[in-house]
Amino acid sequence: MNVVIKGGSYTKFGELWEKTPRDLVSEAVKSALAQANLTYKEVDAIFVGNMLSGILSGQGHIGAFFAEELGITKSAFTLEGACASGGLAMHAGVLGILSGMYKNVLVIGVEKMTDYKPEEVARALMGAGSDGEREAGATFPALYALIARAHMEKYGTTQEDLAAVAVKNHHHASLNPKAHFHFPVTQEKAIKSSIIASPLRLLDCSPISDGAAALVLSNKKSSKNDVVITASSVATDTLGVAQRNDLTTLSATVSAAKAAYQMASVSPKDISVAEVHDCFTIAEIVALEDLGWYEKGKAAKAIREGAHTLGGSKAVVNPSGGLKACGHPAGATGVKQVVELYQQLKGNCEKRQVPDARIGLSQNVGGSGATAVIHILKKL
Amino acid sequence: MNVVIKGGSYTKFGELWEKTPRDLVSEAVKSALAQANLTYKEVDAIFVGNMLSGILSGQGHIGAFFAEELGITKSAFTLEGACASGGLAMHAGVLGILSGMYKNVLVIGVEKMTDYKPEEVARALMGAGSDGEREAGATFPALYALIARAHMEKYGTTQEDLAAVAVKNHHHASLNPKAHFHFPVTQEKAIKSSIIASPLRLLDCSPISDGAAALVLSNKKSSKNDVVITASSVATDTLGVAQRNDLTTLSATVSAAKAAYQMASVSPKDISVAEVHDCFTIAEIVALEDLGWYEKGKAAKAIREGAHTLGGSKAVVNPSGGLKACGHPAGATGVKQVVELYQQLKGNCEKRQVPDARIGLSQNVGGSGATAVIHILKKL
Repeated sequence: MNVVIKGGSYTKFGELWEKTPRDLVSEAVKSALAQANLTYKEVDAIFVGNMLSGILSGQGHIGAFFAEELGITKSAFTLEGACASGGLAMHAGVLGILSGMYKNVLVIGVEKMTDYKPEEVARALMGAGSDGEREAGATFPALYALIARAHMEKYGTTQEDLAAVAVKNHHHASLNPKAHFHFPVTQEKAIKSSIIASPLRLLDCSPISDGAAALVLSNKKSSKNDVVITASSVATDTLGVAQRNDLTTLSATVSAAKAAYQMASVSPKDISVAEVHDCFTIAEIVALEDLGWYEKGKAAKAIREGAHTLGGSKAVVNPSGGLKACGHPAGATGVKQVVELYQQLKGNCEKRQVPDARIGLSQNVGGSGATAVIHILKKL
Repeated sequence: MNVVIKGGSYTKFGELWEKTPRDLVSEAVKSALAQANLTYKEVDAIFVGNMLSGILSGQGHIGAFFAEELGITKSAFTLEGACASGGLAMHAGVLGILSGMYKNVLVIGVEKMTDYKPEEVARALMGAGSDGEREAGATFPALYALIARAHMEKYGTTQEDLAAVAVKNHHHASLNPKAHFHFPVTQEKAIKSSIIASPLRLLDCSPISDGAAALVLSNKKSSKNDVVITASSVATDTLGVAQRNDLTTLSATVSAAKAAYQMASVSPKDISVAEVHDCFTIAEIVALEDLGWYEKGKAAKAIREGAHTLGGSKAVVNPSGGLKACGHPAGATGVKQVVELYQQLKGNCEKRQVPDARIGLSQNVGGSGATAVIHILKKL
């Protein structure tokens, strides 16, 4: 598998009250197409990842909506899979190229979340969970708190371990002009921030953000220095956490990663940069284990020791700042992760550039782990 | 292009208050997999077409939701494109097979609409239109009434012409045990039914229905008597009708059909059976013209004379009863249309069987024409 990325861009993430979804998508797409040296008319299909537009704004049918906005009358699709909507749109775009049906495909991820009341957004987000979870009044911080608590019990993970993820990702975000947050976080500050759902504190949680990302995929023959997608895989698990045997692992990540490594003919140690789904700090710890980088219970120490920080000894994790600090506009995240890897492999990331980045991996999760999408990128 | 259909089924359509979306999908999938002689475990990916679950019931993430329900942990996707959600799921399933990534793909369409207040459903459905249309308080009957009025002005189409579509499709539905309505309609009854949005009357409108459909696509080498998909195409147009040059044609249908005929190397006259998107009677008249079967303004006469009725001289249109009388569970429709064609080409349709059906065409529309999806099927 060898799908060439021709361009990729994401907007500033944050509370962007003055921008509409149209503004955000137009900005990201314009930049991605300029990099690809393509006009709107040369785009054969658009795949839009979005989770909440229909529920929050009443606007569905947003594949066609953005096709109209961009002046395109070709195929347009909306993909939804909770916070993995962007990842699913990526995968569908890859299928579009591999099928031979489309030459140039635009993958878009977008979410506008900060224009709505927090309780409306929290309720809408719970659409990603099981009906039992909604009936019980659960929210995602509460569900990930259960995961954190179980991980602490089983592996001795500490509040300091969680804080280390926040410290690292806020540091990275401070180097990324597009990030939602630019303020640094210390371990002390993280540990003393207010409790949201014990043991998760405010600085363990990713924010509600607005933003868009766009990527151009192409069927062109790849050549030296191109960045290509060498794996795209999806797996699922139960919607609800109560239905799982083990709270400390996301089996969808394990399956999707296994398939992706095989597809790309790489092993975990080959990865030089990763964007993983740190919707909560515990999620990054669990991810590094589920991706096969560490035995269960061993990832936290490495993160705490700085192995995955820029300048560290191992693959840099979440150089963008991750969901935690770059921000998490739900449907945009899965596309933004791949854009970040693309720009890292292209060497365009300035202060947050990972040196000699050759192979990148993204892990995008829907709900509390019901969907996982993995992409592996390689610089030729 | 040559994607083999291994099985396909749809549930009874109607007001199915005693059935949940889980029940409906399980029933359709079980039957489709039995025909395909496949177990759940042999399914590599599921593509779900759904429009309203998130908005009406609060349950999003329904790709993973149905994967869990079916006991599958493979790739799962939700595709949304208003009333073309099912058609887009079909197209994505086809991409999945053609990409070489999946061997057996399950395409599911499902909608549960009758458990909600009509005004909630009408509001949710308007998510398919433009923001201007929502601000103006438009509903889909009103928008299609504009199309009908323009067609009447330009081509002299009459109330009797509209009624002829209802008469034909209710006749077909009376022969289909799965149809929402089994009562026959006379021209007189249709013309005297209450006005919904002039010139559209009650019997010009498709109902709000519950239902599900499932189809199994396979990468197996095709052989004699197999039914294969030989074209799958999607095109888009403006979301709002006000932004179009001509109200009497859906340009997305015209583009998608042109592409599909080319893909399948067939011409309009080769089609022996079609399922078209008659959400309102006028839509079937417009469709037969936009599909290239008639010059503009000429389709109504042929329908009125019975050319497209079972036993008529031309391709049978909507042998299932169409959206008009078989019913229109929004996200299910695009999949159900292809299932109906599959069963027609297989010769399994008993009283409504189209004799010697060899090539079938489905046309699935989202909104008032912003998305159109065409599939062409062939019996080998």
